[in-house]
Amino acid sequence: MKNQPNIEGLKSKIKFGIKFWLEFEGKSILGSGWAELLKNIEKNEEGSLTQAAKECSYSYKYAWNILKRIERRTGNPIVITGKGGSGGGGWVKLNEWGKFLLNVYQQYLEEIKKIEKSLSEKMINI
Amino acid sequence: MKNQPNIEGLKSKIKFGIKFWLEFEGKSILGSGWAELLKNIEKNEEGSLTQAAKECSYSYKYAWNILKRIERRTGNPIVITGKGGSGGGGWVKLNEWGKFLLNVYQQYLEEIKKIEKSLSEKMINI
Repeated sequence: MKNQPNIEGLKSKIKFGIKFWLEFEGKSILGSGWAELLKNIEKNEEGSLTQAAKECSYSYKYAWNILKRIERRTGNPIVITGKGGSGGGGWVKLNEWGKFLLNVYQQYLEEIKKIEKSLSEKMINI
Repeated sequence: MKNQPNIEGLKSKIKFGIKFWLEFEGKSILGSGWAELLKNIEKNEEGSLTQAAKECSYSYKYAWNILKRIERRTGNPIVITGKGGSGGGGWVKLNEWGKFLLNVYQQYLEEIKKIEKSLSEKMINI
């Protein structure tokens, strides 16, 4: 008979991970990182993509590519852009489709957070 | 004013994805693939790892490495092994720790499935 570990003593070290994302026709369009970018764009009154990207530790180019990827995958742009603004380099804002996707993501994230909480409480009782 | 997409028409194409895994001291130890392997080991009465691995489309070596990885990450083996058996090459069975981890995973998976169902129903009403 081999030694068995003390399961009681190990239980508390077990946790779980959950990842959640939105898909459009089976293609991933919004996970936590990309949603963060959209949120930063939405709250940035100047419409500065440079600033929104920076807050996610993304480069401007990487952030712009994310917007383009979501556009390609959903068949519709998620931002409107224009020239001028305080930075002089142009501005970017979420359009209705972009706002809608971010809103759906955030609503589900709220549900997922509730679920994580209730699963964590169950985890205590295993 | 740019054309906006018909959001109503696009809604039904939005789905969500969820990934779930167990962690031990912050290290991933059991996701859907590895749990499948443990389940196959548990149900295989002959204790054949070759057979259990095959059912997951894993090689014997890959499957064995998974068992070793979980052992390293949790600090305890999850199987007992022995010589002989119908195949002649030895047998493998989950020990108490292996059974415990699989059971915890499966319990949480049940919860996750319920959650997926209820989120899908909410998704219909976005």
